[in-house]
Amino acid sequence: MLATETEADFSAWMGGIQVRIEAALARVLPGHQHAPARLHEAMRYATLEGGKRVRPLLVFAAGEWAGAEPARLDGAACAVELIHAYSLVHDDLPCMDNDVLRRGKPTVHVEYDEATAMLAGDALQTLAFQLLAERATDVDAARQLDMLRTLAVAAGSRGMAGGQAIDLESTGKALSQPELEYMHVRKTGALISAAVKLGALCGGPCPAALEQYAHRIGLAFQVVDDVLDAEASTATLGKTAGKDSRQGKPTYVSAMGAARAKEFAAELRHGAHAALGTLGGNTRRLRELADFIVLRKF
Amino acid sequence: MLATETEADFSAWMGGIQVRIEAALARVLPGHQHAPARLHEAMRYATLEGGKRVRPLLVFAAGEWAGAEPARLDGAACAVELIHAYSLVHDDLPCMDNDVLRRGKPTVHVEYDEATAMLAGDALQTLAFQLLAERATDVDAARQLDMLRTLAVAAGSRGMAGGQAIDLESTGKALSQPELEYMHVRKTGALISAAVKLGALCGGPCPAALEQYAHRIGLAFQVVDDVLDAEASTATLGKTAGKDSRQGKPTYVSAMGAARAKEFAAELRHGAHAALGTLGGNTRRLRELADFIVLRKF
Repeated sequence: MLATETEADFSAWMGGIQVRIEAALARVLPGHQHAPARLHEAMRYATLEGGKRVRPLLVFAAGEWAGAEPARLDGAACAVELIHAYSLVHDDLPCMDNDVLRRGKPTVHVEYDEATAMLAGDALQTLAFQLLAERATDVDAARQLDMLRTLAVAAGSRGMAGGQAIDLESTGKALSQPELEYMHVRKTGALISAAVKLGALCGGPCPAALEQYAHRIGLAFQVVDDVLDAEASTATLGKTAGKDSRQGKPTYVSAMGAARAKEFAAELRHGAHAALGTLGGNTRRLRELADFIVLRKF
Repeated sequence: MLATETEADFSAWMGGIQVRIEAALARVLPGHQHAPARLHEAMRYATLEGGKRVRPLLVFAAGEWAGAEPARLDGAACAVELIHAYSLVHDDLPCMDNDVLRRGKPTVHVEYDEATAMLAGDALQTLAFQLLAERATDVDAARQLDMLRTLAVAAGSRGMAGGQAIDLESTGKALSQPELEYMHVRKTGALISAAVKLGALCGGPCPAALEQYAHRIGLAFQVVDDVLDAEASTATLGKTAGKDSRQGKPTYVSAMGAARAKEFAAELRHGAHAALGTLGGNTRRLRELADFIVLRKF
């Protein structure tokens, strides 16, 4: 295929998964016809019509590599996206980042209120684990428990929540690159990696090369986020731009400068490709997603 | 046995479980030697040395009835207690009940800060699901998934978190007894019931009569809580007394008066005993816990 055909094919695949995930999320989130209506509305508001769905895309890309059933991947993709959505709702609260704009819309506590936002985040987390624990006839129960543990470890105090705690502590401090990496491997990388592993686990075990790929794109995702926060506009991002430097948060841009941060992202992209090279099988979507994550403009 | 001997025996059993659970919680909660230290300290502060451990006691009572392994009950009891601890931390935050005292100590956001309290609650919830998903050789994986679903449904938007959302919405309103029950069956009852079911599931399936018992003591627990909030002192409770009426929260005391609320608790206790009567097997601890829940003074 020509480069433009390849790109069009990837875009079509990505669009298909995004539509599929939107429908799956709309199905698993309780509607406002179920009490408490306001809480359920806030949960849907926080989750639906939002974001690039990078984590679900990774679940599907890894799942397709592993030969997993698409219907099974829906549950895993929704679970990881619900954890991501909960973390954004809590992250935006006044006691954390105090942000008013997310995905081009008012944040949940602005649209509803702080207490509802907190409870909506809490219940989104619970729903993620409930989904992964649902009875499945096509995955053996022991592997389902592996998936639950993978998501819990990635989300917990030594994963995503731990990364956010380190982020809070380090505001206003200059961090070295290894310290930054330590924080971001937890804050962003853990859940990105978990998405890849969950997709693979839907089909079979997750090999070390795939974990290596997952680690590298998780880090690359954050490096690119930092570059975009420094260089893109609020309108393009759909969230407040330039926030990190105003809040005195250590970023890859503040630690190494924008030019070196971009080089670092490119190195991680090549490293991710290299990991896939040792993997075998159809790694096309995984390769394309590594490109998408590093080359995106929003 | 004489009445006093029976009481002494129950006290000894209860004290033994409480010590056992304290040790198990101290073991499963990451220590401050693991980064992020402050987050892990806050999680331990929120959970250890606190409370009557009613939910773990119910896990053990139901587990002993079901003939489950004590080592297996530790995990289930810790999981349900971690969910309870997380809910208290978030409930006490300024955007919710804004309380400064819990279990005779400053609340987590007072001792640490709001952001740390929110993240500690988040991570306690995650840890609960992680524990239940841990590999166990003596419980089959499908039953472990049942336990995970039971806890998730009880904690989520149609269980505990949903009950808290209804509680928020109903502050300042007079609720009828059915409305109050609807709220409290979710807010308190769901997790109490889940504790009983989790204990039973450690040994085998959970029969309907045990679910009925669980439902009744869950409701009784809240009715007695409302009576104590109205009548006991802050010193006795270890948390701010008289808070409900000051906050205009609907309670069983405001809905039906203290005398009728006490009668209602007594009826629920007898109903719980009646459910056990149809169950068979050794229901002694379950019976004693129904008495303890209704007759407690703090």
